[in-house]
Amino acid sequence: MQLAHRMTRLGTETAFSVSAEANAHRQAGHRVFPFHLGDINIPTPENVMEAAIRAMKGGKTGYCSNLGIPELREALAEDVNRSHATHYTLENVVIEPGGKPVIGKFLLALMNPGDQVLYPNPGYPIYESQIEFHGGVAVPYSYREGDGVFELDLDGLERALTDKTRILILNDLQNPMGAEASAHERERLAEIVRRHHLIVLLDEAYFDIRYEGRSQSLVSLAGMEERCVLLYTFSKKFAMTGWRLGAAIGPRPVAEAIGKLNVNDESCSNHFIQYGALEGLRGDQSGPRRILEELKKRRDLCVDLLNGIPGVRCFRPRATFYLFPNVTEAMARTGLTQYEEFRKTVLRETGVSFCSRLHFGRPLPGEVQKYIRFAYSGIDLPDIEEGLRLLKGFVTSSAPPKRTAPLASTAARG
Amino acid sequence: MQLAHRMTRLGTETAFSVSAEANAHRQAGHRVFPFHLGDINIPTPENVMEAAIRAMKGGKTGYCSNLGIPELREALAEDVNRSHATHYTLENVVIEPGGKPVIGKFLLALMNPGDQVLYPNPGYPIYESQIEFHGGVAVPYSYREGDGVFELDLDGLERALTDKTRILILNDLQNPMGAEASAHERERLAEIVRRHHLIVLLDEAYFDIRYEGRSQSLVSLAGMEERCVLLYTFSKKFAMTGWRLGAAIGPRPVAEAIGKLNVNDESCSNHFIQYGALEGLRGDQSGPRRILEELKKRRDLCVDLLNGIPGVRCFRPRATFYLFPNVTEAMARTGLTQYEEFRKTVLRETGVSFCSRLHFGRPLPGEVQKYIRFAYSGIDLPDIEEGLRLLKGFVTSSAPPKRTAPLASTAARG
Repeated sequence: MQLAHRMTRLGTETAFSVSAEANAHRQAGHRVFPFHLGDINIPTPENVMEAAIRAMKGGKTGYCSNLGIPELREALAEDVNRSHATHYTLENVVIEPGGKPVIGKFLLALMNPGDQVLYPNPGYPIYESQIEFHGGVAVPYSYREGDGVFELDLDGLERALTDKTRILILNDLQNPMGAEASAHERERLAEIVRRHHLIVLLDEAYFDIRYEGRSQSLVSLAGMEERCVLLYTFSKKFAMTGWRLGAAIGPRPVAEAIGKLNVNDESCSNHFIQYGALEGLRGDQSGPRRILEELKKRRDLCVDLLNGIPGVRCFRPRATFYLFPNVTEAMARTGLTQYEEFRKTVLRETGVSFCSRLHFGRPLPGEVQKYIRFAYSGIDLPDIEEGLRLLKGFVTSSAPPKRTAPLASTAARG
Repeated sequence: MQLAHRMTRLGTETAFSVSAEANAHRQAGHRVFPFHLGDINIPTPENVMEAAIRAMKGGKTGYCSNLGIPELREALAEDVNRSHATHYTLENVVIEPGGKPVIGKFLLALMNPGDQVLYPNPGYPIYESQIEFHGGVAVPYSYREGDGVFELDLDGLERALTDKTRILILNDLQNPMGAEASAHERERLAEIVRRHHLIVLLDEAYFDIRYEGRSQSLVSLAGMEERCVLLYTFSKKFAMTGWRLGAAIGPRPVAEAIGKLNVNDESCSNHFIQYGALEGLRGDQSGPRRILEELKKRRDLCVDLLNGIPGVRCFRPRATFYLFPNVTEAMARTGLTQYEEFRKTVLRETGVSFCSRLHFGRPLPGEVQKYIRFAYSGIDLPDIEEGLRLLKGFVTSSAPPKRTAPLASTAARG
């Protein structure tokens, strides 16, 4: 069978091949330290599981509304209103089988072929894939290393705007960098969105994965509620990645359009697990608290150990479960200056498995600094310690760096 | 926000508005007899629920492969090979969050804009919607009343073929008519598929909902395995409609393409419920047997009572849980000759709720005979009896038919 032409435009998450390689290494009898996974190895809270089981046994095994059960839509609207100072009702909320489906459905509902879409790069690779698959033009904007945090390259973003720019995708808080917009960046973004009449997909998958301070949202700013569609997921806060449950939250016409796509795509999301999610939002909150406490310990251990490796510089993000260390000098030191060569060699020699910048969008022209991504959501403290000890050993036992590549010690764009 | 132009091409299941009207009628304090639902009011088998719960509590709450868990893909390949005499392995099977997602993904993977797609009408309305949404040309073929069964209008189907016809959608066994292809029809279809090099979406959602005889499949015929993609669902056989689990089964390149769409659309299907489905396929089969026994009793009662209503003619399909009675004379008798007028009046006067031919694709030119669809999967025996008694009362108490419309007593095309 000849595939349709559009399939040549479909991207993927190349990170899956990293998983496959790690599994193969493990099956060959080696120990693997899984820093590549955006998955969570912490159980879903007991009360969430019990509520889902009660609903299953209580007969919630037939179809529900294509929009989701009203109780969950209402609870989610209230939850988001509390943290975002928004004014949503259940009619703004459409339940989806995960947060990810919101990306494609948002683009199908709002993007015309030829529209230019600003998207973060490095960023979640599905943005780039879905924009191009559905006929849009993917226009990257980027981040740069600032003082202890990654900063949005807003000048670059403004330069990328044209009269065909119609949509902005903002992943705040960000995968893979752990970046979050500052108050000043959010204000300036809102101003750009207003001035250029942009529509925003606001991917807040990691909004509740926060260790210090309080998450802030672009949608809280003046005029943004009518221009933003939020991507919400139950995956992270409640350790429910494999349950597949999320939501799109936005202006009513968009919610209705996405609901109509649901009718066409999958009828509805699994019925009984929505009662689990409802318990998650409304019930005892000790489960998500324990998840955060565990993740925070992992973050701190990971950041400290990474910064102890020669040639590695790693920020300490206050949210998400990702680290995006600059490893330019460490790579040079090992003589492995190509991403895939470095990654595969480290896996083979130490069992430490991670993704690199390559797995998060097409590299941009002029990139010099090298970054890899460490996820600490799927690896326990002892394995973090052992894995990063081995990685340090690998880097330090390498010959000192041959300084052939330009290695700016200050921030690089990209 | 301005929606994208393509949204004007997106259809829906208008049957949802029938559900909404039935619910409103019930909430106004009236009794409703729900014959409109394709849902199942029978519990999911206990062993399926317990296996899913064990998997959930056993930690299957993280992501699984975008293709589904290998054990389930393998069990499904074996199950289908047994009933279809095919040669599938797990590499031909991709697990989906329902059978429905296969429709859109099949078309995205294989249909180019401008391709003509033959689809059944009356038929599941999502075919028409998804063909046009993704830029194809939806070309209907139909059925006609034969001797106790609906027959495929194969002459009409052949006449509709052009050099742009690339895909055939066959829903065998069929919603809403309960039709199934005869051995002769299957042979002729296979010959057409071979001669015109068509690709087939073979929607077999109701393959295992069978009361007499054995289901047969187009894919079992020579040369069909490499030209067919099967839509499989766990929804009907295991009363799992609200669980959302199904599969696409087809040639490896198509399975891989659909798997890549999964990565983009929802990552994977819910992890732990796949272990429930695995138990469904491999474990104790008394659950699905009991479901079939119950449905068969409902079918027989329903068919007998419908045929006892003046001006109603109803076949007794050996499969599916749908009836598609010809109500041309009954409608004429009531003076309600418009589908929606008839349906709404019957609901208001008797509480009997059903869908009509209008909910299953755009009516075709020249249609004269009138059909409504009764689903008996969501209504118990006493309610079937009481509802159809009321419907009979409504029809018989109406004035005798004013014979103004042409009412051929023999088969009509359409």
